[in-house]
Amino acid sequence: MSDVYAGVDIGGTNIKIGLVTGQRRLLGHVSIPTQSQGGVRQLVARSAQAIRDLAVQARLRPGAVRGVGIGAPGPLDIRKDVIIFMPNIGWRNVPLTRLFAKALGIPAFTENDANLAAWGEAWAGAGRKTDHFILLTLGTGIGGGMVLDGKLWRGGSVSAAEIGHLTVVADGEPCGCGAKGCFESYASATALVKFYRRFAGAARGAKPLPEPVTAHAVCEAARRGDAPAKAAVDHVVKFLAVGITSCVKLIDPDKVILVGGMALAGDLIVKPLREQVKAIFAASFPFRPEVVVGKLGDRAGLFGAAGWAWWNVTQQGRAR
Amino acid sequence: MSDVYAGVDIGGTNIKIGLVTGQRRLLGHVSIPTQSQGGVRQLVARSAQAIRDLAVQARLRPGAVRGVGIGAPGPLDIRKDVIIFMPNIGWRNVPLTRLFAKALGIPAFTENDANLAAWGEAWAGAGRKTDHFILLTLGTGIGGGMVLDGKLWRGGSVSAAEIGHLTVVADGEPCGCGAKGCFESYASATALVKFYRRFAGAARGAKPLPEPVTAHAVCEAARRGDAPAKAAVDHVVKFLAVGITSCVKLIDPDKVILVGGMALAGDLIVKPLREQVKAIFAASFPFRPEVVVGKLGDRAGLFGAAGWAWWNVTQQGRAR
Repeated sequence: MSDVYAGVDIGGTNIKIGLVTGQRRLLGHVSIPTQSQGGVRQLVARSAQAIRDLAVQARLRPGAVRGVGIGAPGPLDIRKDVIIFMPNIGWRNVPLTRLFAKALGIPAFTENDANLAAWGEAWAGAGRKTDHFILLTLGTGIGGGMVLDGKLWRGGSVSAAEIGHLTVVADGEPCGCGAKGCFESYASATALVKFYRRFAGAARGAKPLPEPVTAHAVCEAARRGDAPAKAAVDHVVKFLAVGITSCVKLIDPDKVILVGGMALAGDLIVKPLREQVKAIFAASFPFRPEVVVGKLGDRAGLFGAAGWAWWNVTQQGRAR
Repeated sequence: MSDVYAGVDIGGTNIKIGLVTGQRRLLGHVSIPTQSQGGVRQLVARSAQAIRDLAVQARLRPGAVRGVGIGAPGPLDIRKDVIIFMPNIGWRNVPLTRLFAKALGIPAFTENDANLAAWGEAWAGAGRKTDHFILLTLGTGIGGGMVLDGKLWRGGSVSAAEIGHLTVVADGEPCGCGAKGCFESYASATALVKFYRRFAGAARGAKPLPEPVTAHAVCEAARRGDAPAKAAVDHVVKFLAVGITSCVKLIDPDKVILVGGMALAGDLIVKPLREQVKAIFAASFPFRPEVVVGKLGDRAGLFGAAGWAWWNVTQQGRAR
């Protein structure tokens, strides 16, 4: 095994770390707590140690790991190669690339985590052999990534695919970004819970879900036929269709890939969503994108990070 | 002169026809009535004759015109190389490529007209030396085109950049496309007149503009300080900012290029628009796209058509 890449997917709570071969086989993986209070140097040191441990467990010969890819939340400054700001952790101007390269003595490559989720699905998941797709991460917020012509689309300032902040209702719900009516204020897991509370509060005689209410609980209640929960799901699906069709009208991709907790609610959300997307296009547009659920589950970011190292080290043209 | 390309920009009323050198110099141009009642064969025959006449006037030697590019409204079927539907003319499955190639005996290349307006600005206008930009045609409706990595972005089904139909207000104003709340229902010249009527109707004692009210007249009245006209312009600018920032968040271009009648209203629209776009990003996003007016005026589509022939014949990688 002489063609192995390390992937590091940094989240607010945990860091997923794994080794993946150039043939897309996961040799081993581990999850360690982020423990941001220890600082960035300690985070990198612990991650590097985990990578060395995984290499020993996989009986790799020295030098087999040819690069490390790092996925991190927050915008990237491509010229300085630092993460400008990591929202959940609070760090600014974080030189992850330099620190990882130094700690491991191999080339390191950092990218936004939602972009790498898209890259992971392109390399090893639902986006294989697909020229153009948009990926949406449906979680607490909505993130996104795009693969165009088989390549990760990063944009002019490496900030493309801020899908969660497309405006779907001008003058609508306030968003944490400072604007109003952003897509993620209407179609994220957080929005689902918000709408459930609103509808349950307005409903007479309904038995509310126990606190703290989660998106998962709202989905379960909707499946059981709970009226406010069903109304909240319908509301979110409607806005998912609106946001997704806007993206499709602009990009015209072959596929839309959904990942994250909300995507896993399966038929409850994805089936009516497919129908609504189709109905919006049926009237006037030739777009017929497939709306599919990602194949890598919560490992899309990890595969994407390893695959990003693979792509940069091998200088392949495409992920297919 | 051995490197000349013909451009044909087919509109609902007129066809613009011109000859452009590979060095982007316009040798001559003419506008002929579309006269769609004569049928597609007659339209092609008249256009081909105009191209031959222009070549004679420019004293070109035989064979100097190496290709013809044709811009047409409506979606393209790339496999069959026909225009599926030309909305203003009413024709279906129009084989423009084949007919022009046969009439002139040179290679022909057809594309959507808004895409070619973008290509024109890329090749010979405000998009030169720009890697990534979005172009919006602000007229009766809103059309769009995108150049990414120096190439025209056509999408998976050659239907990308339907910018006029991004949803900006879910459940908003009905649109001709069958959906609700489309961008062009809020930010086109048609929308400006619609909002003017609404605001003027609600205003007491205002002296309404003479019928038929045009977008140009509303802009002039706003400049004079007419309250309903100013309110209508403010309203449209606000939605232009919302639609444009949504596009930017998805694509992350270097520039946004505005063409069409509304773009020419200059400071009245473009100046406050720039400020609002900047304000929306200031809070949370690193995007800093330039918002500029196109340099080719109403010849963007003509240059784009000739430039599309140039690009296809010479197989250049980029328009720069």
